[in-house]
Amino acid sequence: MIAPEAIDHVGIAVADLDGAIARYTRWLGVAPFAREEVAADGIEAVLFQVGPNRVELLGSRRADSVVDRFLQRRGEGLHHLAYLVPDVAAALAAYRAEGATLIDEVPRRGAAGRLVAFVHPRSTGGVLVELCQSTAVGP
Amino acid sequence: MIAPEAIDHVGIAVADLDGAIARYTRWLGVAPFAREEVAADGIEAVLFQVGPNRVELLGSRRADSVVDRFLQRRGEGLHHLAYLVPDVAAALAAYRAEGATLIDEVPRRGAAGRLVAFVHPRSTGGVLVELCQSTAVGP
Repeated sequence: MIAPEAIDHVGIAVADLDGAIARYTRWLGVAPFAREEVAADGIEAVLFQVGPNRVELLGSRRADSVVDRFLQRRGEGLHHLAYLVPDVAAALAAYRAEGATLIDEVPRRGAAGRLVAFVHPRSTGGVLVELCQSTAVGP
Repeated sequence: MIAPEAIDHVGIAVADLDGAIARYTRWLGVAPFAREEVAADGIEAVLFQVGPNRVELLGSRRADSVVDRFLQRRGEGLHHLAYLVPDVAAALAAYRAEGATLIDEVPRRGAAGRLVAFVHPRSTGGVLVELCQSTAVGP
């Protein structure tokens, strides 16, 4: 049982990050509150607050990044669904107990220093699932 | 400007609705609160509450339904992103003003009698967008 507290955010892959930021700023009526390059992954993430939730735009910064490969294969669109959970390690353990394929075997630091982990879509009915920990962790 | 108040729900296309209901009930830690057949569209929708948000599973009830075509083309996975908005007609007007392709030219009754409308993914960077009205409307 993952028992999420909310949808944390929805990740959306975009081909032209700056163009998408302009459109989403217009649609959502707010400017993004964070823009972060994840150099190791070759991607850039931009976050908008939407009430209790967030929308995350994902752009590729290099050929063959995960976002680049997604865009090549499927085009722009919904990329992943992130749930807010009290304990990412416990949620991972629940997926592991049912034989799920985990992308992250242990929680890692994601955007804004939060603990996160991804579960492979082959174990979740085609949905790339991210688990985001709601409680703060030490520095 | 659409200015959504929240992510209302995320719609997920599934091949085996009953199997998916069992898995999501286990993952989300709650049973679905609604199951509704949309006979005109040949689909069935099942809703789970996740904190302030919902997860909607979409199954096909006949060949060539929108869900069936989605599954044929892309397989199981994230199908649409629904925003909660105070006024669906106003949000549609904002999309129309920027030349977006609307699937619903006017709001219609969706699940649970709420006003909803869909915007075509070609106008939203590959994301099928549903607008759901937060305020109740008359019977």
